[in-house]
Parts: sequence; structure tokens; C-alpha cells
Amino acid sequence: MYGTKAAKLLNSKAVEIGDSVRIKTDRNEYEGLVMPRIETGDTNCIILKLSNGYNIGIEAERIKEMSKMESKKETPKKDKVESAKPKKQVDPKEEVVILGCGGTIASKIEYKTGAVFPAITSEELVESFPQLKEKKIRTRMLFSLLSENVTPQHWIEIANAIKEEMEKGCKGIVLMHGTDTMHYTAAALSYMVKTPVPIVLVGAQRSSDRGSSDNMMNLLSAILAAESDIAEVTVCMHATENDDYCYLHRGTKVRKMHTSRRDAFKSINEQPIAKVDLDNERIEILSDYTQRGKTKFAIDTKLNPNVALIYIYPGMKRQQLKEMLQNHDGAVLMGTGLGHIPTELIDVTKEFSSKKPVAITSQTIYGRLNLNVYETGRNMQDAEIIGHLLDWTPEAAFVKLMFVLGHSKEIGKIREMMNTSLAGEITERQEE
Amino acid sequence: MYGTKAAKLLNSKAVEIGDSVRIKTDRNEYEGLVMPRIETGDTNCIILKLSNGYNIGIEAERIKEMSKMESKKETPKKDKVESAKPKKQVDPKEEVVILGCGGTIASKIEYKTGAVFPAITSEELVESFPQLKEKKIRTRMLFSLLSENVTPQHWIEIANAIKEEMEKGCKGIVLMHGTDTMHYTAAALSYMVKTPVPIVLVGAQRSSDRGSSDNMMNLLSAILAAESDIAEVTVCMHATENDDYCYLHRGTKVRKMHTSRRDAFKSINEQPIAKVDLDNERIEILSDYTQRGKTKFAIDTKLNPNVALIYIYPGMKRQQLKEMLQNHDGAVLMGTGLGHIPTELIDVTKEFSSKKPVAITSQTIYGRLNLNVYETGRNMQDAEIIGHLLDWTPEAAFVKLMFVLGHSKEIGKIREMMNTSLAGEITERQEE
Repeated sequence: MYGTKAAKLLNSKAVEIGDSVRIKTDRNEYEGLVMPRIETGDTNCIILKLSNGYNIGIEAERIKEMSKMESKKETPKKDKVESAKPKKQVDPKEEVVILGCGGTIASKIEYKTGAVFPAITSEELVESFPQLKEKKIRTRMLFSLLSENVTPQHWIEIANAIKEEMEKGCKGIVLMHGTDTMHYTAAALSYMVKTPVPIVLVGAQRSSDRGSSDNMMNLLSAILAAESDIAEVTVCMHATENDDYCYLHRGTKVRKMHTSRRDAFKSINEQPIAKVDLDNERIEILSDYTQRGKTKFAIDTKLNPNVALIYIYPGMKRQQLKEMLQNHDGAVLMGTGLGHIPTELIDVTKEFSSKKPVAITSQTIYGRLNLNVYETGRNMQDAEIIGHLLDWTPEAAFVKLMFVLGHSKEIGKIREMMNTSLAGEITERQEE
Repeated sequence: MYGTKAAKLLNSKAVEIGDSVRIKTDRNEYEGLVMPRIETGDTNCIILKLSNGYNIGIEAERIKEMSKMESKKETPKKDKVESAKPKKQVDPKEEVVILGCGGTIASKIEYKTGAVFPAITSEELVESFPQLKEKKIRTRMLFSLLSENVTPQHWIEIANAIKEEMEKGCKGIVLMHGTDTMHYTAAALSYMVKTPVPIVLVGAQRSSDRGSSDNMMNLLSAILAAESDIAEVTVCMHATENDDYCYLHRGTKVRKMHTSRRDAFKSINEQPIAKVDLDNERIEILSDYTQRGKTKFAIDTKLNPNVALIYIYPGMKRQQLKEMLQNHDGAVLMGTGLGHIPTELIDVTKEFSSKKPVAITSQTIYGRLNLNVYETGRNMQDAEIIGHLLDWTPEAAFVKLMFVLGHSKEIGKIREMMNTSLAGEITERQEE
């Protein structure tokens, strides 16, 4: 998988993937495990996993010396299992709980094949992130899923696990999660859990076999955030394309906005809550948040998952929308602009307005809805479509409707709850 | 509708909406029509339509003097009709054709009620934009729709109108269009029309009754772009929140990314083609484009509009996706991250893979798809879902599938066309 130059160099020293090597360049000396090269990029750049868990890439051309050290190929390391638990007794209230749900961040490389597997045991986690040994943590793997396969049922399982850990006592909670649907899960937990301690979701955009992996920095930053004063459900991810700092985003206002960049997560329509500066172990507050200890812990997992999220497009058939509304207990539409849908589709929603909630969000992702400006919007208000003047994301509105439908069957009450900010998903309008 | 201070001032001078007034502040003197105040914002700011067509807002507190001039309330101005046509004969090839489809940009205020109506005649257009009198233009109103009601059939009508104008000869074409679905129409025209002259779509985010209206600057910038060397289907809109310059975006790579900001339109995954600097009548090229005269005019309006655009979400039911695939001739899915959908939904698409094209795009909006990195993506490739390594927007992919299905019924050919860039909707991958 390595390019010609890199492969030649490795062959010349009989170094295989998974071997431990010492490498000298003009400027530096490195020791680490040779990682497989499974991504695109400079294939003549040898990836080395350092003992601190970080990966670096070294161009074959820059390597002056390479020597093989004693082999450290992957073998079951039962003797290391104990290291996952701190030797001396720690008060559980002082510990950060790390819950694992799978995803790239907790992935593990099978050195022989280069395949990426989710790490499934606490031991494997500590083995992947040696710096965790120094932290007051306890770990628990809930399940191991690529996040596109996470369902509303999993959100409930996560909330229940949080409850159990809260009962044992903890300083904060970190939830390792795949990034694809992390913002849906973050929104769900925001509605379901009231928390006196930080609950921080974290993921990685690049797997641990890549020189550019963001997994270590994101996880350590999330632990720092979990020890902080910010007692909300948040997402902690790279703030920029560099490794300079992370952002802590509110769970209901964040969205994955890029397929692959490390700074893919963005706060929508508000500032992130804080900057997490891992190097200086410092958290810089950027906006309002709920302080540690101010909220009593509570959990409420009643959800009705029979909700549709529907993208509206030119030429969409009336019958299509009608069937989707018939088959679900409520729907969130993704309209255009200020929150519009074609006039003939408004008529379809009217047939359901006395029975089923229909909410509107915008395909533009950014900006606040306004159903007062144009005739279409005013017709939508007449059809009792929910969303006028709200600034929610489509995903936060969608998960909210599941939650609200789990709590009421009365259409008036449902509309009222939808229009009220339950977990920061709606920000008050500032006069221009 | 005006706030207390403004209303008091207007009343004290017996000034009504639609009256012509002269206003003095500490620094300046203005003459213009008093506009209704139908938007939120500072309601004590009096909106004046100046004779150059621009609106300004003047805070009531800053007004030192106000005097009513002769009344200019709206009356049918038949005598002005002729002004829409230039007096002397102009070679049609030197004219920019302005086609009207409705939307905010061409809207007209009914002064009595404050309601916004689309302008439907050429005369009304020139009346709204007095600076047009100095331009070599001819105008033609196709229809008058809020763009959420524009359908694939309208795209075909627009293309046919473009053909007729091209046969008469013109310097370039400007298409006034509502902003909500302007990027869908721009993509459709990009696939349907090969053009030796610029075809520029333009809209406005703020209606002409607002001090912050962007309609005049956008339209004049679009005319400048239509006279330029850039012979592509483009979108011309404000580049920033200020009135400093516009961007010219490629029709297949642009998307409305904010509900209300004037710089709502963004090029996705590429630079805009050019900066349009109206003040200096200068076009600054930012990326590759097709030059004027290099392409022979051609039009091909074969479309199959029976395509669905489907947002994928946690908990989506297999049956729901199945029915949507059954009811359409093809579908574009909006997956998560690098282009993933839940494993059980991949199985649903497999049932259709020998008959119907299913393409993938990403909810993240930004970034390139990659179905090689994770198991899910590889399974999607096995299911022959189209999109691996493409960087198209959901809307460009959706309109493209309509176009491609209008040209072939053979699944292999359809996949091949979908994977080939037809109008700049796919940019080549740059090695990292």
C-alpha cells in the first residue's frame, strides 16, 4: 500500500507493518510502530504510531536512518488489562466516565490487513490512547456501531447508561460516537437528559492509522471539557483544520458540515459554547452555558420514533407527501429559503393539520425561519405548520418532534412544546 | 406599521405612505417616496425610495426637517410605457435580454397595503429600476412566481425562451428568479443549455421596500456579468453582507445557504467564478470558465421529472424508502458523512439496483463523497449506488438525474452519465 520509495526503504530493512522502528531525519529521531497506509495522500510518507498514541507521517525522502527494534506485533496483551483500572482507589465522583458507542474515534487497526475495526473493550481503548492511563477515568463500552446505524432505540440505551453512571457518581461523561449522526444523538440526549455534570460527545474524522488523525486530541479535549464547569450536552471536535484547539458546541445547535475535514462540526446560528485549548489545559467560554451543579439530574426517554424528515424539492408529488404524512405520526419538512414549500403541498398538509404536527425547517441550514414575509409563509401559518421565527436545525427539530410526540397526543400541546425551547434548540430572536 | 416616533412625525406633516417628501438631517438632504414599513427592524426608521431606485432608511430622530412635495401616489403611468424601449434602433445582438420569472427581485410595492407583488410587465420593471433606461436591454416577462412554486416544467419553458432570444441575437441573458429554488433552476439550465453567451440568474434576498434591499445592485451586477466574457450559466448575488461586490457562481455548484442574509448564495466545494465589482464596472476572474463564443448554442430539454430527493435519517423505515423507490424512476439520497446510509436501507436499494438508478449525496453539503473508507461505503458500492468520489451538491445531483433519465433508459448508460461531469457539477479530485 506504501508507494515505491517508502516500500523500498521498508523492504531494505526488512521492516513490516506493525514492527517497532527507530527513525532518524535531519532534525529529529522517532520511535514507534509502523502503521499501514490505507488512505490516499502521500503514499511515500511512512506513518509511525508514537508511544504517546499520536501518529506522525515522515516522508521516505527525509529519512536518513531506520532501524528495526524488538518486534511489537499485535498479540493478546492480557498482562496489560489491569492498566485500564487505576491502581489506587479513586472516588467515582472524581472520575470521568468514557462511554463507547463505536465510530472512528475508538477504532483499532488490524496491522496485518490495514482494516479499521471499532475497539470494543476498555483495555483496547487504553491501549490505543496511552495517555488515558494518567487520567481519572473509567470506561464502559455500550455498543460498537458505525453511527449511520445508530437508531432512536440506541439513544435511549445511551441515556439509560448515563443514568446508571450518574447513580454511581462521576465528574463528567464522555461519549465516543461515530461522527455521521453524532449531532442527532447529541440533540436526543439534550432533550432526554437534564444534567448537573458535563456530557460531551466526541468523535474523529480521520481514523487512527492516519498521520492526520484527530482522535487523540479530540478525546483528551473532551475529557478536559467533561471535567469543566459546562454542565450541558455538548459536542467536542476540532475547531480548525489544524491541531490548535477544539470547539465545544451545544448539542442541539451543532451539525456536521463537511464530509471529511477535521473541523467538520459547526455551531449553526450561534457561537460555540467554548474553545478547548488542550495544550494549555484551558477552557475559554464564548457564550452562555449552564454551570455545573445547577441542574438536578433527570432522565426522560419517552420518544415516538414514528416521525419523518422530508426534503422538499421542485416537482415533488402531492401523493408522495400525502403518503408520508399518512404513514407517520408527525413530520419535519425541509423547505426552501425562509421556510417555504410549494403551494400545492401546503394544501396536502392542511388535510392533516387537525391531527398531526407538521414542522418546517430550511434547506439553507443557516438562518432563521420567517413565515410572515411572503404569501407562501402566511399560507403555511394558516395551515398551522410549526416553525415561524424559529432558528432550529432540521435535525434538532426532527429529534424534538420524536420527543414531544412521546409526551403528548394533543395537537395544541404538541405545537406549544415545539414552539418552546426545551434544550437550547431555539435561540431568542435579536432585534436587527 | 411605523413605530410611534416615525408615525408621529409623518402625521405631523400629513405625510402618507406613497407621498413624495424632502427630508433634511444634520448631514444630508433627501428626496423620495415614503415606503411602507412591512419588515421587522427599527420601526422608527423611515424608508425612502430615492429617484435612482435605491431605498434608504432614515431614523426619525435624525430628521430635522420634512416637507411634503407634490403627491406621486401610484397611478397607472401609461405615458411611461415607451421608456421601456430605447428610442433609437439598437442591434439586438448588443442587447442584454432580461427574462422575468418573478421572485423578490422584480417585486413591486402596493403602497396602500404594503404588500409585495411580483412585477409583471417590462414597464413596471423599468419603473422599478430607473437605471435600466441607460442600458442596452430588452425585457420579457415569462411568468411571475415565487420560486418555491417553480417546477421542472418551468425550467423547460425558460430554456425555450432562451432559445428564442438567442435566435433573435443578444449579448447575454439575465434571468430574474426567486432565490428559494434559484440553484435548482440554475443547475437545470446548466444541463439543458450550451451557450456562447453569459446566462446569469439573479435574485434578491430583501424586497424593494427595505432599506437594505439588494435588488438594484444584484440586477445591475448581473447585467454587467451578462456583457462579460463568461459564457456559462451562473448565479450573480451579493458576495458579502455589505454592498461591496457580487459573486458569480457556477450554476451547478451554488446553493442558498442562509434564509435571509444578502450573501446567502455560496459556491460549494469550489471558488466562485468571478467577483463582479459594479462600482468600478470590473469583473475579476477567480477560477476557470468557458469564454464567450467558444461554445455553439444548443438546447436539450429532455427531462424525466419522476425523480425523488430523499433525506436519510436515524430510524427511517425500510418500507418508506422502498415505496419511494417504487414510485419514482430514480432517486437521489442525502446520506450522512462521506455518503453513508444505514445498512438495512442499503439492502432496500439492492432490490432496485438492476432497474433504477440510486445516487448518493451528503447532508453535510460540503466535501467530497468517499465510499472506500468504511464498510458501509463499500457495501453501497456493491449495491451500485452512484456517487463514489463525487463532490456534487444534492440539488445538482437531483436535477442531473432528471436530465440523464430523459436521455437513457439503460441502467449502465445512466450510471456512466451520472459519473461524468456534464456541466461542471463534478470537480476532479485533487490529490491531497
